[in-house]
This record gives sequence, structure tokens and C-alpha cells, in this order.
Amino acid sequence: MSFNLATILRESAETAPDKPLVHAGEHSLTYAQVDEISGRVASGLLALGLEPGDKVAIQLPNLPQFLFGYFGILKAGLVVVPLNPLLTAPEVAYHLTDSDARLLITFEQFAAAATQGAREAGGVPTYAVAYGALPDGTRDFEELIAAEDSGEIHPTSSDDTAVLLYTSGTTGKPKGAELTHFQLYMNCTASGEVFGVSSADISAAVLPLFHVFGLSSVLNVTVRFGSSLVLIPRFEPEAVLDAVERHGVTIFSGVPTMYFALLQLDVTGRDLSSLRAAVSGGASIPGEVIRAFEEKFPGVIVLEGYGLSETASTATFNISAEQRKVLSIGKPIWGVQVRVVGADGRDLPPGEDHVGEIVVRGHNIMKGYYKKPEATAEAIRDGWFRTGDLGYRDDDGYFFVVDRLKDLVIRGGYNVYPREVEEVLYGHPAVAEAAVVGRPDDRLGEEVAAYVALKPGADADVEALAAYCRERLAAYKYPREIHLLPELPKGSTGKILKRRLRG
Amino acid sequence: MSFNLATILRESAETAPDKPLVHAGEHSLTYAQVDEISGRVASGLLALGLEPGDKVAIQLPNLPQFLFGYFGILKAGLVVVPLNPLLTAPEVAYHLTDSDARLLITFEQFAAAATQGAREAGGVPTYAVAYGALPDGTRDFEELIAAEDSGEIHPTSSDDTAVLLYTSGTTGKPKGAELTHFQLYMNCTASGEVFGVSSADISAAVLPLFHVFGLSSVLNVTVRFGSSLVLIPRFEPEAVLDAVERHGVTIFSGVPTMYFALLQLDVTGRDLSSLRAAVSGGASIPGEVIRAFEEKFPGVIVLEGYGLSETASTATFNISAEQRKVLSIGKPIWGVQVRVVGADGRDLPPGEDHVGEIVVRGHNIMKGYYKKPEATAEAIRDGWFRTGDLGYRDDDGYFFVVDRLKDLVIRGGYNVYPREVEEVLYGHPAVAEAAVVGRPDDRLGEEVAAYVALKPGADADVEALAAYCRERLAAYKYPREIHLLPELPKGSTGKILKRRLRG
Repeated sequence: MSFNLATILRESAETAPDKPLVHAGEHSLTYAQVDEISGRVASGLLALGLEPGDKVAIQLPNLPQFLFGYFGILKAGLVVVPLNPLLTAPEVAYHLTDSDARLLITFEQFAAAATQGAREAGGVPTYAVAYGALPDGTRDFEELIAAEDSGEIHPTSSDDTAVLLYTSGTTGKPKGAELTHFQLYMNCTASGEVFGVSSADISAAVLPLFHVFGLSSVLNVTVRFGSSLVLIPRFEPEAVLDAVERHGVTIFSGVPTMYFALLQLDVTGRDLSSLRAAVSGGASIPGEVIRAFEEKFPGVIVLEGYGLSETASTATFNISAEQRKVLSIGKPIWGVQVRVVGADGRDLPPGEDHVGEIVVRGHNIMKGYYKKPEATAEAIRDGWFRTGDLGYRDDDGYFFVVDRLKDLVIRGGYNVYPREVEEVLYGHPAVAEAAVVGRPDDRLGEEVAAYVALKPGADADVEALAAYCRERLAAYKYPREIHLLPELPKGSTGKILKRRLRG
Repeated sequence: MSFNLATILRESAETAPDKPLVHAGEHSLTYAQVDEISGRVASGLLALGLEPGDKVAIQLPNLPQFLFGYFGILKAGLVVVPLNPLLTAPEVAYHLTDSDARLLITFEQFAAAATQGAREAGGVPTYAVAYGALPDGTRDFEELIAAEDSGEIHPTSSDDTAVLLYTSGTTGKPKGAELTHFQLYMNCTASGEVFGVSSADISAAVLPLFHVFGLSSVLNVTVRFGSSLVLIPRFEPEAVLDAVERHGVTIFSGVPTMYFALLQLDVTGRDLSSLRAAVSGGASIPGEVIRAFEEKFPGVIVLEGYGLSETASTATFNISAEQRKVLSIGKPIWGVQVRVVGADGRDLPPGEDHVGEIVVRGHNIMKGYYKKPEATAEAIRDGWFRTGDLGYRDDDGYFFVVDRLKDLVIRGGYNVYPREVEEVLYGHPAVAEAAVVGRPDDRLGEEVAAYVALKPGADADVEALAAYCRERLAAYKYPREIHLLPELPKGSTGKILKRRLRG
């Protein structure tokens, strides 16, 4: 009954050891090489005294070392805690403390915030991937791969947690969604099958691998089906097209903002014929964008899916061009059930007039939020995970998301949780009321906008408030616009009416 | 994280509701029909007050009702306890008591022993599938399918026990191997994939569905991949060929004795061209039989696999004609590891001179023996299941079984555990020593032979001993030959030397 998610790497490596798994810049690594190097990481971690179930945080961009670390941690029977490289020092400290991380693997570029955060979290040992000088306060990641690969994969139980994936869910402080070996295996298997992924595919990994979409739907699917992965550390539209031409990429996965950017490019003279499919997720993609994209890239179909960190990642998917409904998130994948329920928890009939909350059940639902039984009980009721997203089902069983969560702001593919930003604003001595909403933005999909009412007699200008937020929040989170109002609009119960702010 | 094995039926029924799932005699049932009827069984069982985790025994031959019961029990979140229809009343009582069964579903033909056993087990309610008059002491199985199908599948946890499968393991009283929803899902998925099963396949179910080979490798694989199943309640070689011709069977799965029998047939004038593969398991199949079979049935490949109840079922398999090694049990399936270890538990090097015990680890290993922690600890050590079978690995990673367990007798595809027979013999007042071994038999593979030494001055003849056994053991178990010896051969430690009896 033992099962370790790293089995997906071992089995593909045994089937085709010399097949390239990763292309990164000038370098390529085969399945056998990644299997061996990640085995060394496992040995290195265990030699440090870490024990099965211990948490190891990994804060790396899309580099081969992400795979070494990820599979190494799994092979050792440890739990992967992927962190966003853009976190500030206090955010790093929060995540390390909350996850009980015993070790942090970071990148030279983020080492300042990472090491400061690790110190604040009580001195979590920090290893850095560095091409230049080793940053202060870190040890060399190379030390972790100096050990021998024992070839052993720790026989975790299938229901053991494999990944603690931080998300704020609907609101509040980030919580670690416990994703199990079983859950992640089932999700990459069902997603890849529905999508017809095979070892002949070459996928472009431009989505960050620390995010559920990149981790489960791109990395795990690739490894499970013995495909190849072209790592693109930073989204640059031209770099994506270069990768397609150079490596013969067949699958591109991205968030809508990436599609907007790719549409702006001149593709004259490029051979992009290898591309067969483009997966969109993370936010709703407008129908006109799909049509324009497919016109610009003939032979490519854009397929939209839906999922959350807690659903690891895919819950629904548009299977194929023939079965696709534009604007729909598709149908549940194998083994997953989706319902639309009213405020009373009862099923709503099909039809766009019957919008309710989307709830999900099946193998893809997280075990729970780490050490947060109340938040878990709130999120999973009677076995059904409440997504907090509003949508409806049509007569053919296709699902549609109407409002991508009441309040969530998705800026350039990153989730920004208004309440987290609001809590920072509320920390400023002059602030009386604060509300953060998304403002439509051509480039980023949404921009973070804050509305603030000052305390009577208090004195603070917009620049000071912006600087205050910038110091305390990751670059993608702090509000780009701050509007001062005498008072925020409120409903009869006194609750701030965000919809009035959105206009 | 919830997962119920019955999802394999629901998903295939949603994909192709009108596809035939079962052909039985003149009748065929579609996926939608089996999904609906099994849903009624689930409703019927829950209406009786059964609660998730409760055990329900099912003692049916290969009839559609087996599928209704099996998937109905699973859908209700209950645990299936498949029983051999040939068990005697005391054996039925033992299995019902040991498994804590709350209900028994049996067949008219076996109802006498079943009802007596159910009474002895404290009055377990017994439902019978009956085409004639309802047997005394039973209720009609039809009552269980009178309820409405709620459409609901109980969201069991993936590591919950789905099936309690009785086996004696290496020795002793039958023990219930706890097979989980996850384990059985993974096994049918990995087995079907390695074998290239698709919805175009039609499988002949001549192996009993209550046995792990028939249950997991035939029934579950069929349903998982949306194929069709031709039920053959009793192995008759001509009936198998008739089914192939009539339904276009593509896959035949059997034990070696079935292959021996099929080889004796005249196939002149028959169109058996649909058959593509024949799977052999349950015992070693001689190389000459494989060659003769493939000559007689052109276009068919015989592929040998290996597994036990505790490995649910497949552990290793010969993937394809190209990759097959005759006489080998093949290589481990996806996600399964196999080793050959010496008496000290260490790995033996490859080569036929290095015979050791075959041990297995992975998703396919049972949770344990129900309520038998000591037997479980004995069977699974450091996460590795000790098969008790002796074998070796060659340089290419193929495994070979040398001795199909030291003592086990396989009579016509049924496991006969010598110790169980010996215990009965030891129960006779005149018996001093007893040893049961397998004697090679052309028709059955092996026949059960007993060697007995009587107590000094005791008086019993061979006929009396045979009658004594026949009363207490299923028809396939009791010894057909009993030899009286003055004393059984023993080694220096006093242990009876069975190999001397085998000659």
C-alpha cells in the first residue's frame, strides 16, 4: 500500500533512461540523470538527520534544480513546501514557521529576503543554488548533491502528505494545503489522460513550478507520461516562441495574461507547427482571445481548465476541440464530481440563471490545511470542498465560472488576496478603513487597487501608504493605486460594499 | 482525497452508457444498467441499516449478480468479502465470523451449506440469487434490488478497505487480506495499461470472480477500461471456444490447467481470430504448453504474470510478445518493486544459482490481514511483503519462480493449503502424524496426497480417514490419496521432510 509520488520519475527513468526530461537554456538532462541527482539530494537530506514527514521548503525559479530538490525531498519521504520566490522576509518567516520547515532551499537572487526570513523563523538552515558567489548565511546546494544516490525511494503511505502548498483559500493568511502522494498521482494521471499526453510531447514550463498549476499540471504530468519539459524561468513572449521553434514544443500551458502577450507578437517567418495545444487556467480567458489565438497559431487548440491549490490542481477540463465549449471550464476529470449549490447547500438546476457555489469531491481534494482543523472543516463540508467560486452548469454538464471568487484579485497570474493587503493597510496608524479590489488591466488582467479612509485628524498621503505596503508585501501584491475617500461605501450591516468600489 | 473503487464503473458508464459490460448466456447488460442496478443494491443494503465499513459476504458464481453485488457493496461504502462457493458449512461459518460479516449473498445451489454456516455464525442474514424456488432460510436477492438507485457513491477514503479477500497466505487458517480502494484501483490500472487493454477488448471471465485473479485482473480491468466481459460460470473448454466465436473475445485469462484442457480440443472450422492474448497466472505454465498453445491458436500470445491475494493481484507481468521471456513471470508492473532475498534478508545477485525468497513492495500490497496484526507483521517486514515463493532474477531484470511456495498445492487452479488439511487429519483421534503434499497430475496440475502415521495401537483405515476429511473440507481440498506409513520421514530437528514424501 506504500506509494511515493517520486515513483512517476523512477518508472519513466526505467522505461526510457536516455530520454531528455529537461531542457534549460543550453543544457539538457535525461530522465536517468534527474533520477540520479534527485536521489543524491535525498541522501544529502537524510544525512542531515531529517526524518520522514519533516518539511523542506523550496524557493526556486524554473531551473533544473527545482526538479532535483522536489523529487529529492519526495524520495527521502519528506514533505515539499514550495515557496514563491517573490516573498518578502516576513512572509518567508511566516511560511517557514507555519509549515514547521526544517530546511530551506533558495536561489542566489532571493537570498537576502530568504536568509532574513529563515533567521526570523528561528534559524532554519538555508541552502542556496548559486551561479555566482554563495550568498551570506547560506550553504551551497551543491553540498546536498555531493552524496551518493542510494536508489531508494522511501515507501510513504499513499495518504501521506507529499506537498504543503500555500494558498489563502478564499481569505486570510496563507494556509498550507496538504496534498497527498495519492492525490497528486491521480491528478497528473487523470489530467494527462484526458489530454492525451504521451512521451512524444514536449511541454513548455513557463508557469512557475512552485504554483499548483505548474507543479501538478505541467511538471508532474510531464514526468508521469515520460514527456520532455522546456524550462523557461521567466515569462517573455519571445522566449516562449523561441523555445517552441528550438525544441519542437507541443504543449503550452499558461494563464490568460500570457495569451494576451503572445497575441501581440509578430510570428512571421517562425515555424511553430509543432504546437498542438495550449492549456489555459488560473483565470477566465475571454472567448475573443481564444478565437484570435487560434487564428494566429493555426493548428493549436486552446483548452480551458479549472482548479485550485486544494484540488491539486485540475478539477474540470475541456477535453478536446470537438468537445470544447468556449467560455466553459469543461467537465470534471476522471474520478472527480462537481456540483453547483445554493446558499442552503442544495443542488441548483442547470442553466445560467442558476448561479451558485461550485463544490468539488473526489481523489483530487486535499487532506486539509496543515494544523488548521477549523479552516479545513470550513472548506470541506460533508466531503465536498467549497471552492468559493460562483458558477453554473449547463444542460450538457459543462461548468461555467461566473465570478472568479468574490474578492480575489489575479494580477499577472498571481493570486493577490485582498484581505492580506488590507491587513497591512490596517496596520498603518492613520488608516481607518481599507478595501482592496481588482481593477481590470489590459496587461496584467487585474491590478491591485486600494480604497482607504483615514482616521479623523490623521495625516498620511498616498505615497506614504504605498511605501508602507511595499515594505511589507511581495512586489506582486502591493497596491499600485491607492484612493483616499472620506468613508468607504457600506451596506446596512456595516459591511464594506466592494462591488461599489469596483464600479 | 475521497476515492471509491466503484468510480471505475461510474466513469465508464458515463463515458459509454450503452456499451455492453456483461454477456451472460443469452443476456447482455450495458454499463448504464449495471451502474443502475448496483446502485439499487447499495440503496437496499443501506436501507437494512448497514453502515460504512460493515462487511458483506458474497458467494456467487460468475453471474451478472456478482457485479451487482460487488459494485453495490462498494458504492454503499461497505466492504466486499468474496467467498468460494464450494466452502462447507463450517468453513462458511468460519469466514463469516472471522470477517464480522453482517450479511451474506449466496446462490441457490450453495444455499444448504451457506445457510447452515450463517446460522453457526450467529444468524447472519442470508440473501440468495435463485432461479428456482427460494432456498429455506434465505431471502430473495431481488429484494435488495427493489430500492431506487440514489446515484450516490459513498466517498470512502482511498486507504479504506474495499475487499477482504480470504487466503491462507503461506500456511494455516484462512486470513482476510485487506485490499484498499487505492490498491485495487492502482492494480487494475497498471495491469490494464501494461497489457494495452482498451474499450475495444472483450474478455472471457472463466476464472472465478471471487478469486483475486478474476476479481482484479479480469473484472476490475474490464470495467476500468470500458471493455466487455463474457461470463462463463464453469470452465468447459468447448464453452470457452464458443464464447470466443460468438462474442469475438480478444483476451482469455486462465490458469495452466485450463491451457492443458484447451490444447486437447479440435478447433477445426472454428473462427477464433478475434483472440489476441492469453494471460496465464496462478501457477507456472510449462514452456512446451505455451509453444503448443500458440501453434494451435495462431496470432495469440500467452503472457504469464505473477501475483497473490495480498498483491491484489498482479505484481509482475510479461508485457508483450517482443519483451516476453518464456518461463519467466516477467517484470514488476508500474509502481511495484520486487527483490529476491536470502535467509538474512539481503539482496541476492542475479542468476539462477541465486534462488531466494521473492519479496514485493508498492501500491499493490495489502493493508494487512484483518484483525491479525501478528500475521501481518510476519508477512510485511520493513514494508516488504514476503511472498514465501522462491525464485531468482536474471541479468535483464526478469523474475523466475522456482518453487511455487514450498508446500502449497495447486489443484485445478485452487490453492490447497496443506496445513489446513493436516489440521483436520490431526483432529482424527487415530492420527499421530500427517503431512499433505501435491502429487503431479496431468489433468489438475496437482492432486492432494496425504501421508499419515497412526498412533500406536490405533485403528483406522484409509477409507475412514478420507471420509473424515471429506466431511470437514471443501470438495477441492480433501486428499484424494491417503497413504499409511509406520512413521513419517524426518530431519535431524524432527521436522517432517516433505520433499522425501514428494519423491
